[in-house]
Amino acid sequence: MATKNSKGARIPEPTIERLPLYSRPLEELLKADIPVISSETLAKLCGVNPAQVRKDLAYFGEFGVRGVGYEVASLLKEIKKILGTDRKWKLCLVGLGNLGSALFENQNFKRRGYEFVAVFDSDPEKIGRILDNGIVVEHPDRIEATVARLNIEIGVITTPPLEAQRTAEILFAAGVRAVLNFAPIQLRKPECCVIENVDFTVSLENLAYHLAKLGKHSN
Amino acid sequence: MATKNSKGARIPEPTIERLPLYSRPLEELLKADIPVISSETLAKLCGVNPAQVRKDLAYFGEFGVRGVGYEVASLLKEIKKILGTDRKWKLCLVGLGNLGSALFENQNFKRRGYEFVAVFDSDPEKIGRILDNGIVVEHPDRIEATVARLNIEIGVITTPPLEAQRTAEILFAAGVRAVLNFAPIQLRKPECCVIENVDFTVSLENLAYHLAKLGKHSN
Repeated sequence: MATKNSKGARIPEPTIERLPLYSRPLEELLKADIPVISSETLAKLCGVNPAQVRKDLAYFGEFGVRGVGYEVASLLKEIKKILGTDRKWKLCLVGLGNLGSALFENQNFKRRGYEFVAVFDSDPEKIGRILDNGIVVEHPDRIEATVARLNIEIGVITTPPLEAQRTAEILFAAGVRAVLNFAPIQLRKPECCVIENVDFTVSLENLAYHLAKLGKHSN
Repeated sequence: MATKNSKGARIPEPTIERLPLYSRPLEELLKADIPVISSETLAKLCGVNPAQVRKDLAYFGEFGVRGVGYEVASLLKEIKKILGTDRKWKLCLVGLGNLGSALFENQNFKRRGYEFVAVFDSDPEKIGRILDNGIVVEHPDRIEATVARLNIEIGVITTPPLEAQRTAEILFAAGVRAVLNFAPIQLRKPECCVIENVDFTVSLENLAYHLAKLGKHSN
């Protein structure tokens, strides 16, 4: 189903994927009590070109003040509504290794409404450990019961790759409908659910590509 | 400067950003000695729709065998050439916390040609520690000398946010021209260099958006 703006026009997927980028500086501006921002300034803050910003935000036309810019508060509110970030989400983490620990401690998650409420790991040394917010590390056997009890909606997988597919299946069977997967493996997903794979090497390849282009410039 | 294919046609940026996605399954197919793949199968393996795959790969037309598919080896070679992944890159890591350790241990980096050759951290407890491959953790004071000595091209920043900007400046001054930044802060960059910011909450927001859409479907 396509996402539509308040005038009923369909908002294209690439625009939606750029909205989180725009929401970051808008949050800072709101905190700093700046009521209006020009597309040029917003573009600079996001590292996107101004024409792209104007095109994307044209879908939220009513928040633009012609010749001046956008109303920060209204624009941010609309973006959050579309992205579903105007609400809280409950997350569980499966795999408390280095990466899992880093994600659990990430301050930005909670600030943006994503809160870890359960953590699972199969290592007997970690089970029973008490983390921040009083969360106790549980064995993955407990996923089904805990997901149901706490109404957990999103699972974050940071297990070794060979355990990731089975973990995803247990999470989906338990009622989780969205998985953020950091294990370096493509997961199969049922129709009812969504998976987002995070692969750091994709970012590195983009970087290397731009670096190789820089090299051609300067030679 | 625009990237061009062997016939001189400009390849659009979104196509280039999807190339790493295509290269993953192609590598697996090459290992399995499968010489040709159809666009339908490749699309399925990448989670992209077949029309998009055909459109993107049309820029590499000579590798398509009409009605059959693409030659795996030639297509992969061309993609790697464009992405600059047909060569090795030397990386250094600044910040050996949980996230830094997870990245250092990531097997996929080295497999794809990205090798950490130096690690820096300001924690006296960590300095001098010997990691895999005999790499010794050094104080960030050593960045300039080590980057020059080892010809390091890419810096990976996993410091606390308040140290990230200064770290980037030290790296750029030392001669690094590309930075992959995991600290939750937007970094300023000089014209000569490239920065790629990795923000996990962007992936979470995409996931929450798709989950919210699913919810609308099933209600």
